[in-house]
Amino acid sequence: MSNTLGIIAGGGDLPRAVAESAREAGRGVFVVALRGCMTEEWASGFAHEWVSLGEPGRAFKALKGASVGDVLLAGRVDRPKFSELRLDAKGVMVLPKVVAAARKGDDALLRFMVGLFEQEGFRAVSVADAAPGLICGEGALGRLTPNDDHRADIAQAFGVVRALGALDVGQAAAVCEGLTLAVEAAEGTDAMIARIGTLRPNLRGTPDAKRGVLVKALKPTQDAKTDMPVIGVSTVRNACAAGLAGIALEAGKSLIVDKRAVAAEADKLGLFVVGVVP
Amino acid sequence: MSNTLGIIAGGGDLPRAVAESAREAGRGVFVVALRGCMTEEWASGFAHEWVSLGEPGRAFKALKGASVGDVLLAGRVDRPKFSELRLDAKGVMVLPKVVAAARKGDDALLRFMVGLFEQEGFRAVSVADAAPGLICGEGALGRLTPNDDHRADIAQAFGVVRALGALDVGQAAAVCEGLTLAVEAAEGTDAMIARIGTLRPNLRGTPDAKRGVLVKALKPTQDAKTDMPVIGVSTVRNACAAGLAGIALEAGKSLIVDKRAVAAEADKLGLFVVGVVP
Repeated sequence: MSNTLGIIAGGGDLPRAVAESAREAGRGVFVVALRGCMTEEWASGFAHEWVSLGEPGRAFKALKGASVGDVLLAGRVDRPKFSELRLDAKGVMVLPKVVAAARKGDDALLRFMVGLFEQEGFRAVSVADAAPGLICGEGALGRLTPNDDHRADIAQAFGVVRALGALDVGQAAAVCEGLTLAVEAAEGTDAMIARIGTLRPNLRGTPDAKRGVLVKALKPTQDAKTDMPVIGVSTVRNACAAGLAGIALEAGKSLIVDKRAVAAEADKLGLFVVGVVP
Repeated sequence: MSNTLGIIAGGGDLPRAVAESAREAGRGVFVVALRGCMTEEWASGFAHEWVSLGEPGRAFKALKGASVGDVLLAGRVDRPKFSELRLDAKGVMVLPKVVAAARKGDDALLRFMVGLFEQEGFRAVSVADAAPGLICGEGALGRLTPNDDHRADIAQAFGVVRALGALDVGQAAAVCEGLTLAVEAAEGTDAMIARIGTLRPNLRGTPDAKRGVLVKALKPTQDAKTDMPVIGVSTVRNACAAGLAGIALEAGKSLIVDKRAVAAEADKLGLFVVGVVP
């Protein structure tokens, strides 16, 4: 069986990073570009097919035509408005189950989607399998490291993210000197970071006098196959703009898009980026 | 001993509602207006003294001068920037402990402040003691009641608030059809509600087609003496503007400022406001 990697690609930088990493490793890549989620133009650099979220049959056909064995879901997938979804025959069949899964939360929806591909004979693989170079290791990525205050805030933020994650709320939290500044829900990490800059100045830092940490971690309810937390250069820039001193990720269970660039940006802006085992 | 009620008044509508409720009950009231927190002008309607957060000695003196026995902390108190705090002698003595308590979180800080007054021989009372009319009862306040979907979202939101509250994060969360839309941290409830309106339209309701619920509840770590959750007319207006279908509070453990006006506004805007026993 071919070892061509099929990437079901949503929004953000992760799908492209996975595709390029797999290609650099000499592997064939076929991209199923999710219409409405993946707005980027990068798909043109790879064999690909545009598919709506309601067209699983079309996705299966394209993947089989490209003799894909392993399939990977990567990138941001917004909850569709099911009433407006363009549906193929297979989509009509599974839509009721999709809606039911969606009501149980984003994780249930993702697990259901993975299951669909497995039922079609594909092997669902994780980003860790397909692009191990993106996994966050233990220790500091750049030159700076967290001090004792930062470590205390990191531990507290991990506690918040775990408690929230168990309820399928969000992946990220920010803590500054014992005070939880912000917690991620449906707004996403970037919006959560941005609002820290709007809090009362005595609660937070500034780009010139940085205080507090951002933590992103996998929800206990999540499957590493589908939704590992990911950061990139833009996350470092946003954290700096919000006055945060650094970013902590769970080593081995989170992803960094373009580690070299992230380390360089962190050093340039004066933040730490660290992988920890909480 | 006199039964004059001393109200240490922070921001928001609660302190005034407590003061008026106590006065209507025929009780003497003395207001310690916290400078920088209580910007409202209503204090002039009561015997009062303006005091900075760093002047506990001044507050004690004023309260004793007014022969106050029972003391109550009410309203929003922002974390001060301790370096800029105006201090009296007593303030200098206690500041190190205040800073230490503040690092343990807002609840620890409030408990410490209550303790300070008790050490001075005052009796710390709760809003429930001093103004029982403000307590949220069980059942719907206005005409509308939650449907089964709303009840499911209410239960989920209570779960989120409890999990967060145990970590001293926030008091409020919003859930829409199984998806947690927003969770309160340092930004406060109003800012949390406002951001719901900025989420992707397919995730939330609108003022014309309302979806989802707001829940506010006491943190397990909190003392009902100091920080019961509060809503008022503005909360109902904000929830409507964010497209939420209603508001649920924990019966007996939350407060409503001006129940008649809140019920009228909820009926006018088409939201439910309900006290539940979760």
